[in-house]
Amino acid sequence: MTASPARPRHLLDFADWTPERLSALLDNADTMSQVLDRPVRKVPALQGLTVCTAFFENSTRTRVSFELAARRMSADVVSFAAGASSLGKGESLRDTVEVLTAYRVDAYVVRHHAAGAAHLVARYSGKPVINAGDGRRAHPTQALLDAYTVRQEYGSLSGKTVAIVGDVRHSRVARSNVELLPKLGAKVVLCGPATLLPADLAALPGVTLTTDPREAVRGAHAVMALRLQQERMSGGYLASLQEYAEHYQVNERLMREAENGAIVLHPGPMNRDLEISADVADGPRSRILRQVDNGQAVRMSVLYHLLVGRE
Amino acid sequence: MTASPARPRHLLDFADWTPERLSALLDNADTMSQVLDRPVRKVPALQGLTVCTAFFENSTRTRVSFELAARRMSADVVSFAAGASSLGKGESLRDTVEVLTAYRVDAYVVRHHAAGAAHLVARYSGKPVINAGDGRRAHPTQALLDAYTVRQEYGSLSGKTVAIVGDVRHSRVARSNVELLPKLGAKVVLCGPATLLPADLAALPGVTLTTDPREAVRGAHAVMALRLQQERMSGGYLASLQEYAEHYQVNERLMREAENGAIVLHPGPMNRDLEISADVADGPRSRILRQVDNGQAVRMSVLYHLLVGRE
Amino acid sequence: MTASPARPRHLLDFADWTPERLSALLDNADTMSQVLDRPVRKVPALQGLTVCTAFFENSTRTRVSFELAARRMSADVVSFAAGASSLGKGESLRDTVEVLTAYRVDAYVVRHHAAGAAHLVARYSGKPVINAGDGRRAHPTQALLDAYTVRQEYGSLSGKTVAIVGDVRHSRVARSNVELLPKLGAKVVLCGPATLLPADLAALPGVTLTTDPREAVRGAHAVMALRLQQERMSGGYLASLQEYAEHYQVNERLMREAENGAIVLHPGPMNRDLEISADVADGPRSRILRQVDNGQAVRMSVLYHLLVGRE
Repeated sequence: MTASPARPRHLLDFADWTPERLSALLDNADTMSQVLDRPVRKVPALQGLTVCTAFFENSTRTRVSFELAARRMSADVVSFAAGASSLGKGESLRDTVEVLTAYRVDAYVVRHHAAGAAHLVARYSGKPVINAGDGRRAHPTQALLDAYTVRQEYGSLSGKTVAIVGDVRHSRVARSNVELLPKLGAKVVLCGPATLLPADLAALPGVTLTTDPREAVRGAHAVMALRLQQERMSGGYLASLQEYAEHYQVNERLMREAENGAIVLHPGPMNRDLEISADVADGPRSRILRQVDNGQAVRMSVLYHLLVGRE
Repeated sequence: MTASPARPRHLLDFADWTPERLSALLDNADTMSQVLDRPVRKVPALQGLTVCTAFFENSTRTRVSFELAARRMSADVVSFAAGASSLGKGESLRDTVEVLTAYRVDAYVVRHHAAGAAHLVARYSGKPVINAGDGRRAHPTQALLDAYTVRQEYGSLSGKTVAIVGDVRHSRVARSNVELLPKLGAKVVLCGPATLLPADLAALPGVTLTTDPREAVRGAHAVMALRLQQERMSGGYLASLQEYAEHYQVNERLMREAENGAIVLHPGPMNRDLEISADVADGPRSRILRQVDNGQAVRMSVLYHLLVGRE
Repeated sequence: MTASPARPRHLLDFADWTPERLSALLDNADTMSQVLDRPVRKVPALQGLTVCTAFFENSTRTRVSFELAARRMSADVVSFAAGASSLGKGESLRDTVEVLTAYRVDAYVVRHHAAGAAHLVARYSGKPVINAGDGRRAHPTQALLDAYTVRQEYGSLSGKTVAIVGDVRHSRVARSNVELLPKLGAKVVLCGPATLLPADLAALPGVTLTTDPREAVRGAHAVMALRLQQERMSGGYLASLQEYAEHYQVNERLMREAENGAIVLHPGPMNRDLEISADVADGPRSRILRQVDNGQAVRMSVLYHLLVGRE
């Protein structure tokens, strides 16, 4: 009999998370989803606790999703939106982080363009920290809601294939999915123009790369279109948006290559008729709004797991 | 016996609201006003429910008024202030609205420069939506608090005359009052320079137009000065601010033409000594701060009516 | 038998506060500090009451500290951040203040660059007002947390000396400490370049001035480094930042002149290696993070004192 590995204190990325823990997290999201189906969508699970959302990068929809998740479990929420604040005054990230930790809240949700910011908060505060997106590296709750949405469709991720199409290079969503989905038994196919497809990802277990979108979606049970940052054009990554859309847009024609009944995902916000066609975004395959909805259940599950359900 | 018309689900404008329902709303605001007079100004009416204030246009005072109204009835509030957010990233209004509706909150308070935004949220969410101001078209809770303030003074709106002076053309407050006050039995006189007075409003029942302020206030029980958007000058609507103030300022001299005891209203924020003189704004006729105070009671009443008091 | 002076209704500065009341405030902060040490850091003391934080000047960390203090005592909080709002629309400060008071909340926390803003809110609202920083004049809760931090170290402020080094001229923190510390029995030594040291402060009881930092810290039990606003350079107050740091930086060399065991304070955010050296900021003498932590306990104590603990 071997001891099970220690329960992770934080959700920074998936490195410390075993497949069993991750499955438990998604199972618990089912319970939370049932709470959201009730007429009164509020439970006392986190009563008396305070969650601090520290967003050094603007992201209204992710912040609101976390705030709702915390409030629905009766936690207090304080928002630290550091646009014009502290850092603007020339303070070092470390000093800002130390101030945050001196507030003595019970958990932190951190969004920062620097990959190490959430880790710093975790180290200095000793409190549970959830990474709500950092630079190009990770956005774990987004990957969890993607996984949850696929699992909801097929019952399990085992043996399923998820194709991720677009600007893989700059996508923290893609990186987190590459880390998460194989742990849950799924295969990932990454697809995009060669300039936007980092070759090193091909070395990871369960991951294949291709520049051919038809090859990518063949056999896929879910196809995720990534948002195209239009500022990439000036970076020389793309010849033209029109050419990009012609080759890599997730549309009905492309989806005919996928598995029967394959679903379509998008992390939002969408550029309609650029990386995804409007008819697919609004069509019967689309689970894009379901993703938003599932985001709340998944974030409730993560907060609960880190703050309450500890052995 | 005829069936009473269906109770409106939303407050987008007053089209679906019968005089009886509107009176009930104002009666209920009296009850809420009593709550605000207590030492502890909080009731459990909306406990467990969540209200989302989605302000795509900045308006601190309206947002705070709604947040206070919701919190005083024990609702949770999440704020979606979409300055730099979603829409800024090129997302369509419809997609933003769909994301909002996926949050599954219990009611939405929407402010947007586009007239149809609140309607869109109502259609997609299926939840009660309150229009907190859209373009030039409607700002119904402002009109309700205006009506409530006049009623508080005279016991009833029946047979009363309200003169609205200023930039009628660009005022959603004026449009909502034109829609509301005649339903409650009051007459409305709209007054301003010809360039700021849309002729089509003259066709409405209970509404008259004039470019002569003395004629407008003659016989009026309440005189409302509208805020002058100074950027109208560059639009060619006005020759000079000084000339405007000379003719259309609501001041003591003009108020001498009104009914004895006539009160003065202003939706705020004021340009003192432009559209209204300081002595009138601060004088005994002014009900301008009472309007702010009443705004909270009226918004509590609207939230209650839409969320709880349904048959 | 003389009547004790009336209990102050507001905390605008320390003019109306007797040493006894101030000591009671710090004693009560001890109790609040114990609340913050519990697993569930929340008490029902302010249940049903609403605190409005009106920040006309951006200060995320002070606002969050007050919001946490209010929420930990179960108050509701509404935030009025007046960047682009009201005042931006040309409204007078007085009108904005009158609107704030019409919200009928139970207490106001006001930050404004104009020294009289908090006083105006106090006069018009009749509700308890806490000054959270105004112009160059006062920032009383910061001084209280400084005093509390020194008292925590030495048991009492009586007979202790606090040296304040840096840009005294532009510091509301320095002014509030000059007002507070002597009332509690401590001596204050103010130190900085002559251009940043207002001579009139030398006339105050318990206060001495010097341009020599070694003289200033000699015998000091606590040394506070003030933040250097780098924009002072262009104001002609300083020849160069390098020269300033050479003479006035609070570092290990300077601290060797202070009392054995003397502690170091800084109101934050720090310019590391400008007004304070990194080794002192992070070293065993530093109480800088303790100050942030104490800020919450002190603000809870002030809110409680003004809102609940009245005779």
